Amino acid sequence: MEELMMESAQQVLDVVTTAAREQGFAVNIAVVDPSGHLVAFRRMDGALIGPVDVSIKKARTAALFGTDSAALGEGARPGGAIYTLEHTNGGLIGFGGGVLLHGATGPLGAVGVAGATVQADEELARLGAAALS
Amino acid sequence: MEELMMESAQQVLDVVTTAAREQGFAVNIAVVDPSGHLVAFRRMDGALIGPVDVSIKKARTAALFGTDSAALGEGARPGGAIYTLEHTNGGLIGFGGGVLLHGATGPLGAVGVAGATVQADEELARLGAAALS
Amino acid sequence: MEELMMESAQQVLDVVTTAAREQGFAVNIAVVDPSGHLVAFRRMDGALIGPVDVSIKKARTAALFGTDSAALGEGARPGGAIYTLEHTNGGLIGFGGGVLLHGATGPLGAVGVAGATVQADEELARLGAAALS
Amino acid sequence: MEELMMESAQQVLDVVTTAAREQGFAVNIAVVDPSGHLVAFRRMDGALIGPVDVSIKKARTAALFGTDSAALGEGARPGGAIYTLEHTNGGLIGFGGGVLLHGATGPLGAVGVAGATVQADEELARLGAAALS
Repeated sequence: MEELMMESAQQVLDVVTTAAREQGFAVNIAVVDPSGHLVAFRRMDGALIGPVDVSIKKARTAALFGTDSAALGEGARPGGAIYTLEHTNGGLIGFGGGVLLHGATGPLGAVGVAGATVQADEELARLGAAALS
Repeated sequence: MEELMMESAQQVLDVVTTAAREQGFAVNIAVVDPSGHLVAFRRMDGALIGPVDVSIKKARTAALFGTDSAALGEGARPGGAIYTLEHTNGGLIGFGGGVLLHGATGPLGAVGVAGATVQADEELARLGAAALS
Repeated sequence: MEELMMESAQQVLDVVTTAAREQGFAVNIAVVDPSGHLVAFRRMDGALIGPVDVSIKKARTAALFGTDSAALGEGARPGGAIYTLEHTNGGLIGFGGGVLLHGATGPLGAVGVAGATVQADEELARLGAAALS
Repeated sequence: MEELMMESAQQVLDVVTTAAREQGFAVNIAVVDPSGHLVAFRRMDGALIGPVDVSIKKARTAALFGTDSAALGEGARPGGAIYTLEHTNGGLIGFGGGVLLHGATGPLGAVGVAGATVQADEELARLGAAALS
């Protein structure tokens, strides 16, 4: 299985950081491997502390379930078909900002972005993921 | 009290594994005793990691409340009569896939299946439970 | 990276179960992947409940630190050079019974055995690991 | 209060990474702010997963008590004057590898290194801290 290398993780952090700065956001960025363990993390200057954990949980959610956090969240909310799923695995995030990373031959893990708006977090995470493909 | 024997638990795993494979699913399967403690577990090749915890929590939910997880979930959601119950016992699951195991003389525990669709998880868990009765 | 297949994990459980039975022990056996996530678990008839968690933590300890639990435990005790390490990663086990699994090309994860004596747990885990090499 | 900037944290990671590579070690490196919250993290290629949490706890220990983890560990062990302290704050580390970061005008946080030997972790963390002063 292709592994997520430190340099690739760093590249994801850099792409997200640059884009966030251009948009005037200060975000937290987490990169995890396919098993959900942390590979790289960065808190931009001025980013809030609360989203530190959010960014990590977004990335973990995507990695552990093989799906972007927003897709999982559609069902994991009151009235959804998988409501209560969000309480498993130490807490999952069911809104945008957790996006799978794909390598040339398969899944590499996931990136989580938190601290801007949900939409901006999601777009920044997608930008980061695109840097590897 | 009739006890859930290792061999019976193994039989439940095997029945679910065979059926899941025929349907093209790779699932996690957990069997717990009436007190909710793990008796047997299997992650099929290719199954996601996130549903490991989900399958165990589904089985625990059924065993601890003496009811299938889907039945409990009908009330344990916002607007339901027992909303907030899902936050007890380290986290309960309120959708399909956690099914009680019955022996000749009484409850034997429960099986939890996670990793396919909610409906398939539920049907697979029922198949597993049927193997013992 | 070589992956731990369900069949191999099952083989480890079977070898440990047979040996434990011959020795008159009822143990809990856990097999985890290299990232510490559960792949297979079995509680033998008559095994205590407390060692369920112990067997899982033994296997996790070995997998996450790439060393058998007994080796890690020599330092992670009062007076040892890495005392307090045992409180990380949700709780580690520093005595025998957690043993690495090796495949033809690299690490496959780990097996944890708990419920007999420490020495017997360790020997049983080694027997299980030997089944794969 | 002088703040730990992202660029400085990155610099600490880079200095430790380069030195660890020269010494043939693959380590996990965590940088936290004075309140113990994560600012930056990096897992080097080939580093073990277990030390991810250890590196973060080392940095937190140093930051939260304003002292290097090794110094705190001298007292926080059975027989030591502050034995049991290591069980607070979600788990502290009482051996080398967690080192305070000092800026021109005061404390900036701490760096934690884990995955080599205890002595090498400590020296690497000191190197990282020296990069800022």
